[in-house]
Amino acid sequence: MVANSPRTRLDPEARRAQLVGLGLQMLSTRPLDKVAIDDIAAEAGISRGLLFHYFPTKRDFHVAVARAVADELLARTEADPALPAIDRLRAGVEAFVDHVTANRDAYVALIRGSAGGDPAVMEVFEETRVAFTDRVLDGLPGPHPPRLRAAVRGWVAFTEEVTVDWLSQGALERDEVVDLIDDALVALVTMATNGGG
Amino acid sequence: MVANSPRTRLDPEARRAQLVGLGLQMLSTRPLDKVAIDDIAAEAGISRGLLFHYFPTKRDFHVAVARAVADELLARTEADPALPAIDRLRAGVEAFVDHVTANRDAYVALIRGSAGGDPAVMEVFEETRVAFTDRVLDGLPGPHPPRLRAAVRGWVAFTEEVTVDWLSQGALERDEVVDLIDDALVALVTMATNGGG
Repeated sequence: MVANSPRTRLDPEARRAQLVGLGLQMLSTRPLDKVAIDDIAAEAGISRGLLFHYFPTKRDFHVAVARAVADELLARTEADPALPAIDRLRAGVEAFVDHVTANRDAYVALIRGSAGGDPAVMEVFEETRVAFTDRVLDGLPGPHPPRLRAAVRGWVAFTEEVTVDWLSQGALERDEVVDLIDDALVALVTMATNGGG
Repeated sequence: MVANSPRTRLDPEARRAQLVGLGLQMLSTRPLDKVAIDDIAAEAGISRGLLFHYFPTKRDFHVAVARAVADELLARTEADPALPAIDRLRAGVEAFVDHVTANRDAYVALIRGSAGGDPAVMEVFEETRVAFTDRVLDGLPGPHPPRLRAAVRGWVAFTEEVTVDWLSQGALERDEVVDLIDDALVALVTMATNGGG
């Protein structure tokens, strides 16, 4: 048995990471709810039973894969805290657009309708949008009334939509997409802070 | 057999509408991809075979239900063309927020992850977002360069997100939500038209 054979005995942590990694790879060819447990077990060279030892249900596995996508996205878009807020924002938006571009299939498979109505997976997206919203609000001087929070939350969805739409249509340059998303946040925050009381 | 028994013989058009209507009702309790053909046939008092006569595949049925939700949403939010553009916008946003509020379960079941990764159903949402985008752009004096189109497209996603998030959190009043969405479009259109060249 060679060292990197899939049948190599792995410690539980490494095995778990390997299985989630295989799930991530499969996202490039199918939506999350079509990532079958049997295929993952076969790829890993382990039994279905052993896979269920790590992930008791198919849902547990799908949630772990969704969380891995979300965690990586959040980590990649975390800009240097030493930067001024405005530069941090731009660096974060650039990292978001580039990361989604590089991982287009996995990202679109997750964002666009692949959650299969599973509330546990949707909860992962919900948490991710909240995390992005909090990150932006943290960079803005307080207070953060509900109108401002809602505007920033809407901007997160704006950012996803503009990026995914651009990936399929491509009518703008990459820098124009970053500019648009960046300018949109400034416009929305200004609007939300000034208007509406 | 009484006149309004589910087993009443219906003409094909009426039967089709009845089946889609049953699908819409079921969306209040489950996501679209969990709307089972067998349950629909049982509710309608017809055989599975007859249902498949109207909708050859489960996907055909799901697409018809998604299209019915989308068509109703587009029809309800179509404001009086006699109104000035700014009033038409506000009337449309009010109608959107109120329609989604009244049909919360069906709408959330569709928008939030219930498409189950079915490309044909996702295509219905894509068309709906394009229809909303075109409607807004039609109300704006031309030209409509890609930056403006992308901003309006993003605003459609902003609108969905703010509305659905508000339905689950409710930190704003209904009129504040309408104001926010309305103000956001003005801010984004101004930003997209002026900046970026």
